[in-house]
Amino acid sequence: MANAFYGQSGGAAAVLNATASAVLTTAREYPGVIDKVFVGRNGILGALHENLIDITQESADTLDGLLYTPGAAFGSCRHKLQNPTVEHDEYQRLIDVFRAHDIRYFFYNGGGDSQDTTRKIAHAAELVGYDLTCIGIPKTIDNNLPATDCCPGFGSAAKYVAVSTLEASFDVASMHQTSTKVFVMEVMGRQNGWIAAASALACDERELGPDIVLVPEIAFDKQKFLERVKQVVAKKGFCIVVTAEGIRDTEGRYLSYIDTEDAFGHGQLGGVAPHLVDEIKQAFNYKCHWSVCDYLQRAARHIASQTDVDQAYAVGKAAVEYAVKGLQSVMPAIVREQSVPYQWHVEPVHISQVVGGEKSMPRHFMSKDGFTLTQAGRDYFAPLIAGEAYPPYSGGLPDYKKCRHRLVERKLPEYFGGNTTQAVTEPA
Amino acid sequence: MANAFYGQSGGAAAVLNATASAVLTTAREYPGVIDKVFVGRNGILGALHENLIDITQESADTLDGLLYTPGAAFGSCRHKLQNPTVEHDEYQRLIDVFRAHDIRYFFYNGGGDSQDTTRKIAHAAELVGYDLTCIGIPKTIDNNLPATDCCPGFGSAAKYVAVSTLEASFDVASMHQTSTKVFVMEVMGRQNGWIAAASALACDERELGPDIVLVPEIAFDKQKFLERVKQVVAKKGFCIVVTAEGIRDTEGRYLSYIDTEDAFGHGQLGGVAPHLVDEIKQAFNYKCHWSVCDYLQRAARHIASQTDVDQAYAVGKAAVEYAVKGLQSVMPAIVREQSVPYQWHVEPVHISQVVGGEKSMPRHFMSKDGFTLTQAGRDYFAPLIAGEAYPPYSGGLPDYKKCRHRLVERKLPEYFGGNTTQAVTEPA
Repeated sequence: MANAFYGQSGGAAAVLNATASAVLTTAREYPGVIDKVFVGRNGILGALHENLIDITQESADTLDGLLYTPGAAFGSCRHKLQNPTVEHDEYQRLIDVFRAHDIRYFFYNGGGDSQDTTRKIAHAAELVGYDLTCIGIPKTIDNNLPATDCCPGFGSAAKYVAVSTLEASFDVASMHQTSTKVFVMEVMGRQNGWIAAASALACDERELGPDIVLVPEIAFDKQKFLERVKQVVAKKGFCIVVTAEGIRDTEGRYLSYIDTEDAFGHGQLGGVAPHLVDEIKQAFNYKCHWSVCDYLQRAARHIASQTDVDQAYAVGKAAVEYAVKGLQSVMPAIVREQSVPYQWHVEPVHISQVVGGEKSMPRHFMSKDGFTLTQAGRDYFAPLIAGEAYPPYSGGLPDYKKCRHRLVERKLPEYFGGNTTQAVTEPA
Repeated sequence: MANAFYGQSGGAAAVLNATASAVLTTAREYPGVIDKVFVGRNGILGALHENLIDITQESADTLDGLLYTPGAAFGSCRHKLQNPTVEHDEYQRLIDVFRAHDIRYFFYNGGGDSQDTTRKIAHAAELVGYDLTCIGIPKTIDNNLPATDCCPGFGSAAKYVAVSTLEASFDVASMHQTSTKVFVMEVMGRQNGWIAAASALACDERELGPDIVLVPEIAFDKQKFLERVKQVVAKKGFCIVVTAEGIRDTEGRYLSYIDTEDAFGHGQLGGVAPHLVDEIKQAFNYKCHWSVCDYLQRAARHIASQTDVDQAYAVGKAAVEYAVKGLQSVMPAIVREQSVPYQWHVEPVHISQVVGGEKSMPRHFMSKDGFTLTQAGRDYFAPLIAGEAYPPYSGGLPDYKKCRHRLVERKLPEYFGGNTTQAVTEPA
């Protein structure tokens, strides 16, 4: 019998805490194997600095609330561990902390970088002969992890953008004759168009939803784009565009950076939506409106997908079960058995299959011209946004819970090594 | 017994069609008084061009769907009628159309400009001696109509921004230590801060929700703002800012225009959120993220306020009842009896009390420093976002309905007068 460590890492998501709930709940089902679960405050930084949250200090009400509270309830981080084959002080510290608290199970919940952290720690523990069972748990709204059909967090972001695009199209359709002709909505996705493409689930024979979807996997051709906008406006009177933040031109340059360099002259002002709107106005002088969803799309627990919540819980439960079974360096992956009706299950994949690569959206999910979703794409995305998992409300607002973050007593001196406050630089 | 005209006008809203549903349903309760209700396609333009929608051609399913479908189901417009005391051709045409279809009841549903249209038409009908009962019906997410405590459409926009801000604050709180320190969300409100201020309903003792709210009623002081951002980040590690699109500097210049002139060099690219983020980055080099809600906030029927839906229905029902009673040139106004527990009723106000003025948010709703909501403000806003009025879903998306817009047979020659395709210019 030993203790476990659980950490949340990387960008937050609407259903990340549902996975935390599953880990904590399932661990209690194996009292003879797992004694306590210590949760890292701000992920791996909590382990390095011995900031271990004592969940027994959180109210039952708060822990129940994990199922429907967005964000990372215990704090997340973007911290890149050193290479275990070069410098070891971070790993030595981690092992010291694990040993001091008799931690023999390590669960780390995040995207590609987080899986890399799990792999490195498993390697470091092996190097120093410390017995540590390391299990990665998937979470990323980007849906770009290899070896799993989809990632917890994505389905809810997809549902948010599809619902939002549908609603915006009803609005624009209402008064295009005397007002806005083009609406451009920018969503996340620097390397992949998973989220942008999912918005096209709002398209139907009623000519609602996005008319044009722009994804990073397909080079942005300004003339083709403007021509299509013109055609759509001529045909139905208005045009709805959804663009991923990371679209690039035929020379591979991010439009947001082009923006920055050529038009604004300063850093983070960019935004692909306003850039596209500017191009459209210069070309046709249409009245345009634009929106940038940013964090709203990944925090929108109020419109979370039930499929996403179920899968987020399932991978957390499976992670603990794998650890109890003695599996090492694996991640619960979501396997799709069939799309209609949707059937899926979770099975372990070795973490080496997940680290490094990045799963792009298949080209055949998008039409030949690259502007719309194909039936194959619809079949993939549709089940991921199915079902509404509403949180409880109080006074008109979701009754989300905030944890107290009471820490267990430290057993080691403070840690000053490493560069534990530096964030991995994120794209502007 | 005569027929009625109903038109939707101005910017769409999440609950505008609930009012349409009430008008159509209530009219059927007075078969001896109101025979048919003709709905203008694109509001008053439908009357001018004799584009009258025959709602008997819409399915019962579609008409039931009006209760939960966003936008303007029958089309809206921004068309400014000529001054009845100067040129009369538009009015002559309107009277001709009304006479041709025996329309003796005129219901017009919108904001300030729409109430002005109703007033002008009542005046014109009087001038030519045509008996026409004119009733204005309130709708505007801007909540800026005089003589009514609040406006249908506002409560749902307020709920959307409060929920979104709450969720974004959970996200930013999760990883501020190694990532984003400041999040800025831009909402609608060119002249008034009603929507921006309502986002502060998400604030509570847990330090979630917006830390700083910027409204047009209070001049933007760059130094004070930056100082407050710095204080908040120093105190809690991150800062959430919600800004109305229409904030102005101490000289009354829109920040979005300053942006346009000084930084971008072209029209509609502006956006106050990216401008503020640029200022914050230049001052402190914090990592920032920003979001622009735009149409999403007024189309978000998926998170509509039950209070708002109830009031939208109530004003539509009252409008028909006022007409049947023979009231002339009135608008159903929402009267607040008390805030806690919330009690309200609808009563008629003369349309002259509504036209012209614009209701700004009371200064005492905001704190002395102008950055946060007072208890008086909370008491006003809280009941307006109460209750969740979820639409039905199908396949993971709201099951919104689209009308067919079948027109009744024309009885008059085509109209070429007026300038009926020109939109009243809206702020960029």
